[in-house]
Amino acid sequence: MLNPQLSDFGATMSRLTGVRAIMKDIVETLQARAGEDLINLSAGNPVILPEVEQLWRDCTRDLLASPHYGEVVCRYGASQGYQPLIEAVVADFNQRYDLHLTPRNVLITPGSQSLYFFAANAFGGTGREIVLPLSPDYTGYGGICLVPESLRAVRPALEVDEAGHEFKYRPDFDQLEFGAETGCVIFSRPCNPTGNVLSEGEVRRIAALAALREIPVLVDAAYAAPYPALNFTPMNPVFAPNIVHCISLSKAGLPGERVGIAIGDEGILRAIEGFLTNACIHASRYGQALAAQAIASGALAHLSETVIRPHYQHKFTVLAQGLRAGLSLDLPWFLHRGEGGVFAWLWLRDLPISDWELYQELKQAGVIVVPGHTFFPGLRQEWSHARQCVRISLTASVHDIERGVQRLTQVVQRVMAYRTVSSLAS
Amino acid sequence: MLNPQLSDFGATMSRLTGVRAIMKDIVETLQARAGEDLINLSAGNPVILPEVEQLWRDCTRDLLASPHYGEVVCRYGASQGYQPLIEAVVADFNQRYDLHLTPRNVLITPGSQSLYFFAANAFGGTGREIVLPLSPDYTGYGGICLVPESLRAVRPALEVDEAGHEFKYRPDFDQLEFGAETGCVIFSRPCNPTGNVLSEGEVRRIAALAALREIPVLVDAAYAAPYPALNFTPMNPVFAPNIVHCISLSKAGLPGERVGIAIGDEGILRAIEGFLTNACIHASRYGQALAAQAIASGALAHLSETVIRPHYQHKFTVLAQGLRAGLSLDLPWFLHRGEGGVFAWLWLRDLPISDWELYQELKQAGVIVVPGHTFFPGLRQEWSHARQCVRISLTASVHDIERGVQRLTQVVQRVMAYRTVSSLAS
Repeated sequence: MLNPQLSDFGATMSRLTGVRAIMKDIVETLQARAGEDLINLSAGNPVILPEVEQLWRDCTRDLLASPHYGEVVCRYGASQGYQPLIEAVVADFNQRYDLHLTPRNVLITPGSQSLYFFAANAFGGTGREIVLPLSPDYTGYGGICLVPESLRAVRPALEVDEAGHEFKYRPDFDQLEFGAETGCVIFSRPCNPTGNVLSEGEVRRIAALAALREIPVLVDAAYAAPYPALNFTPMNPVFAPNIVHCISLSKAGLPGERVGIAIGDEGILRAIEGFLTNACIHASRYGQALAAQAIASGALAHLSETVIRPHYQHKFTVLAQGLRAGLSLDLPWFLHRGEGGVFAWLWLRDLPISDWELYQELKQAGVIVVPGHTFFPGLRQEWSHARQCVRISLTASVHDIERGVQRLTQVVQRVMAYRTVSSLAS
Repeated sequence: MLNPQLSDFGATMSRLTGVRAIMKDIVETLQARAGEDLINLSAGNPVILPEVEQLWRDCTRDLLASPHYGEVVCRYGASQGYQPLIEAVVADFNQRYDLHLTPRNVLITPGSQSLYFFAANAFGGTGREIVLPLSPDYTGYGGICLVPESLRAVRPALEVDEAGHEFKYRPDFDQLEFGAETGCVIFSRPCNPTGNVLSEGEVRRIAALAALREIPVLVDAAYAAPYPALNFTPMNPVFAPNIVHCISLSKAGLPGERVGIAIGDEGILRAIEGFLTNACIHASRYGQALAAQAIASGALAHLSETVIRPHYQHKFTVLAQGLRAGLSLDLPWFLHRGEGGVFAWLWLRDLPISDWELYQELKQAGVIVVPGHTFFPGLRQEWSHARQCVRISLTASVHDIERGVQRLTQVVQRVMAYRTVSSLAS
């Protein structure tokens, strides 16, 4: 095996960050203990819902039956994206949210991860910051920066319901500042990993602060309405001149095909499109053609509300009930308000061991979650809170979630019993 | 429209380079003169061949009929690629070329353009060069470098058959040097735009020079055997420890799906895979699943030899005949040896105007080709030759190629008549 010398970019970008670094340990654990009753609540792969798979199968059949098949699959496409998909998005969003989008306000990317990669490096880099206004946030933002120092995350304020064992992160506007060196702003809404949905007012305030310097704000809507509509609390997308609304079809059942959709200002999108063109020509077109049909017919939005959302919302309820049943009310545990997404986020205040050690204990007890510190990319200051959380996936079966949470609560009960007096007093 | 501030990367990467900068002019010309008899010999989009489209349709039907559909399209995949495709490539190449590849020697990327982007920046960048050992070469290499100064192309030697009006580029090994600052080497074989096929000896010599410093050599095999087998001269892929053999399925009828295949050293591929993971998670899986079937069954290699190759080879013959029929033998015109690919490359020595001016004259006469200077990315020295060539596409119909070449030869005859005495004497 060769050991070719890497450039600075190579050294940065070939390193796996966040959850990806931990996935290796998880995969090895699952392999080493194959056959054992190990419950995996770490997965990010969405559930294959039969109705949703059927939708994509139907769209594929229609594509095969149409004379367009060759044009879609056997031709290079425009870098901006497949025109029928762009038009379907424009029509749907204009009608749904009373907007005045034109096709120039839409760009299709090879998945939304690549959208953040292109945007982060088109606007950020040496001396130009990429700001995550509310930490924790999506672990993948840690991997998109060619210049890692350019990523800066802002510590949030905590709204804690002590009696209800619930909490919610809020942007801390006292700490949130954008300057001449700010290149762009990114956050997910609903948030991976926490399930937080920033309020419309919070989003508008962040965007307004950024608008003072024409800074693009990318709102990662991978879990948002109208597709996959994985919001459990009412929410609407927020539009503003400097907001780029970023859709993914991955949680709408199409993660295998990489389709990201950016909606926003033409000037911002043009810069991202140029980057995309040079780096990869265009996004795959099969998924785009399927999405064009499913959006234009309304089927995707309908299934999102009637199938995808209730599926995960129910699992969140099961999980929350399991925690309440298994954890003493006198322990300082707090579940983040479940406002959307496919994960639950548990904060164990005064946890006497690190989240990594807790993860190891949980593995021993036969349940795998993701230690929370991996979700604070770009946070430069030490913060004990970042070592007191775990992410629990809602993609396992209801039965496994029930059993997994039972194991988890037993371990947490035991571990939390050893809290020191000093941490009790803190 | 906003005017957000770009980072250095953004300024570099959002700029369209090479042919892409000219495509705008071509598209505008085609739109402005819609309805006119304008023959487009500039296109890079491959012809949709009925037998090839049928292959992908058949594979799609099989995928739809299989229980794997959901696993392919409705799931995230491994960053390395879809396992059945990796295994099909390993089996096919081991059998075909008597190799000992394992799955660790294969990486699937979202198209081969992205493969060059990831590799160029993993191994090249500030102070680390990306070397194109034989200029001209694929225009897209001009767009992949985050640090544009890091691209260095080497001027070739010319082997000219004056009487036969043919020529061929050869690597100039007197000029070709790799140093501690060399990050990687890239070239296409068969070459876009020239149709040149570097000899096996030339490839081995380049690889051996690079091997002294463990420098990866990426051989862009987008037109090579075994698929799409667009070599018109016998050739075999060359394997060496530091060679990454890079396959594209775009000219095998699958450009709409972005599927690139890298075959080579595990250490090199691992760095590229990490970059890929962070930037875009994985390549789309539908195209990978189709390719897995078509490669495993042997159908793709068979159609490549029996349908794709003869189709373009015939067109090259038609074009060469048209040039011979239309251009005086006393003019210094030279067609690059047609050893493969989907383009022809014409050198007009002593052309009294620039290639850009010739392109404008040709447009007036109703035929569009691509001016050649766009294919010398990274060439730092002035070279008059780089302004004396045009690329002619073989993707138009035989009829249109005949008519287009007729128009082209008339313009060239007229323009070349004005050569100055000094250029005649040179």
